[in-house]
Amino acid sequence: MDGDRTPVTVIGLGRMGSALAGAFLAAGHPVTVWNRSPEKAGPLVERGAVRAATPAEAVAASPLVVVCVLDYAAVHHLLAPAGAALAGRTVVNLTNGTPMQAGEAAGLVAGHGAEYLDGGIMAVPPLIGTPRSLILYSGSPEAFARHRTTLEVLGTATHLGSDPGLAPLHDLALLTGMYGMFSGLLHATALVRAAGVGARDFAPMLSSWIKTMADAALPRIAEYADTGEHGGPAGSPLAMQAAAFANFLDTGEELGVRPDLILPLMRLVERRVADGHGDEDIHGVLDLLTTDPKENSAP
Amino acid sequence: MDGDRTPVTVIGLGRMGSALAGAFLAAGHPVTVWNRSPEKAGPLVERGAVRAATPAEAVAASPLVVVCVLDYAAVHHLLAPAGAALAGRTVVNLTNGTPMQAGEAAGLVAGHGAEYLDGGIMAVPPLIGTPRSLILYSGSPEAFARHRTTLEVLGTATHLGSDPGLAPLHDLALLTGMYGMFSGLLHATALVRAAGVGARDFAPMLSSWIKTMADAALPRIAEYADTGEHGGPAGSPLAMQAAAFANFLDTGEELGVRPDLILPLMRLVERRVADGHGDEDIHGVLDLLTTDPKENSAP
Repeated sequence: MDGDRTPVTVIGLGRMGSALAGAFLAAGHPVTVWNRSPEKAGPLVERGAVRAATPAEAVAASPLVVVCVLDYAAVHHLLAPAGAALAGRTVVNLTNGTPMQAGEAAGLVAGHGAEYLDGGIMAVPPLIGTPRSLILYSGSPEAFARHRTTLEVLGTATHLGSDPGLAPLHDLALLTGMYGMFSGLLHATALVRAAGVGARDFAPMLSSWIKTMADAALPRIAEYADTGEHGGPAGSPLAMQAAAFANFLDTGEELGVRPDLILPLMRLVERRVADGHGDEDIHGVLDLLTTDPKENSAP
Repeated sequence: MDGDRTPVTVIGLGRMGSALAGAFLAAGHPVTVWNRSPEKAGPLVERGAVRAATPAEAVAASPLVVVCVLDYAAVHHLLAPAGAALAGRTVVNLTNGTPMQAGEAAGLVAGHGAEYLDGGIMAVPPLIGTPRSLILYSGSPEAFARHRTTLEVLGTATHLGSDPGLAPLHDLALLTGMYGMFSGLLHATALVRAAGVGARDFAPMLSSWIKTMADAALPRIAEYADTGEHGGPAGSPLAMQAAAFANFLDTGEELGVRPDLILPLMRLVERRVADGHGDEDIHGVLDLLTTDPKENSAP
């Protein structure tokens, strides 16, 4: 049975790396592992993994090499000495980083004659190996096509394009979207808690509301981002939305809830209104978020 | 047919007040209207509404008086002179305000022998009169029960309790939750736009992701708010989440996207980790949002 399974090397055995190696083992793949602190390999070796003595030995062991370490500095530190062993391999780098770092890593790997895929894991370790785990890939389309079945062992596998920076870009954008949403959940929950209302009683209403509002707002935000068009009259004009903000601040003060998490959008909305866009909807705030990337200076 | 319909007075004919009066007219209720600028009543009078000459005359015309004006100062300014005309009426105040303002308005109205309901409209004017419009009410349960059928003309009607501040509290909490969520949508969309990726292509992934993450996070946030219990091991420890934040800032700088909308939560998470809570999940940030309401001072 193992003859049908591509041998896989997993480098980096933190919580996520160990989950990745464990999923490959569970699916019957021959797995070679390496970690800077070798004792982390113990539980995987007990389940049948082979412990490599060096990163170069780990890279040499399998055609598919999955790297999941702390940061891209560690990626370079590990792969550069592996040198010739990389030739002909496919490196799948699931380390958290930026689009620019992904491009640099792709260059390093290509320089050694290997193919490169970058990846963003949109799941926590316990979900790895289930369909609820989504992993975004970018880089060599040929390498993705060749190893797709193996990569799907880890969860749903989506290839975004040949630019290796696309996976970290999408990963980061999704995470920042999530943290913004968390900001809203936390502020709203803090308000009801401070007023003595049960947060668990309030949660279903909050959940339903933000999903409905996301469905209402996101298509228009995205259309404005792509076309600069406002897509019909505003649901509620920005000037009217801004008028409600004083109540947010007053109520927070009455109840003892700090406004930190909602202030920045309020300030941007107020600025947009002051700039003469009070009859538009919220999506025009996009224009205040973008600076000239060449100068990296505030407008 | 009108004999089955409670006569309704609507005071305040901005976009929302006009939509409310229009919905009552469409449902066959006798409608009396008043607005500070009388010409705003024109289109409603053409549809059968009666224009009152003064707020007191408007209040006297109907057992159910709906008020939707700019702010609570205007509510007091209008209702205080109506005096004796208020006796025996039910005032439904749908003006945006704070829980404390709702309590004060309830006191004023009760002092004139009328019942009081406060309300928060979770819909834009074009949705009024459809089931997609949700209106939250609080205050006199008897008045709500008596006028429920009439109020349901405007949309789904939910009564939250006898404390008149509950409707504005829920309204404000839902809106701040929405603006936090918008912060995330806007930042994420700004990132992909700056990288040259189609925001409309990205939107379905973003929408699905934030809904999934809301379902994963909100029950635990709410449980922590109500009980102080963490509800099992963290999905991803806060210290690991904080480690990814540098990538958000670096990528924003590379692409020319300002971090304003995501910085506050990053700073609170970093502070929570520094305070020794790095092994918990995001919900502990709640404790950093709450100050002592009696002092209103930053911790």
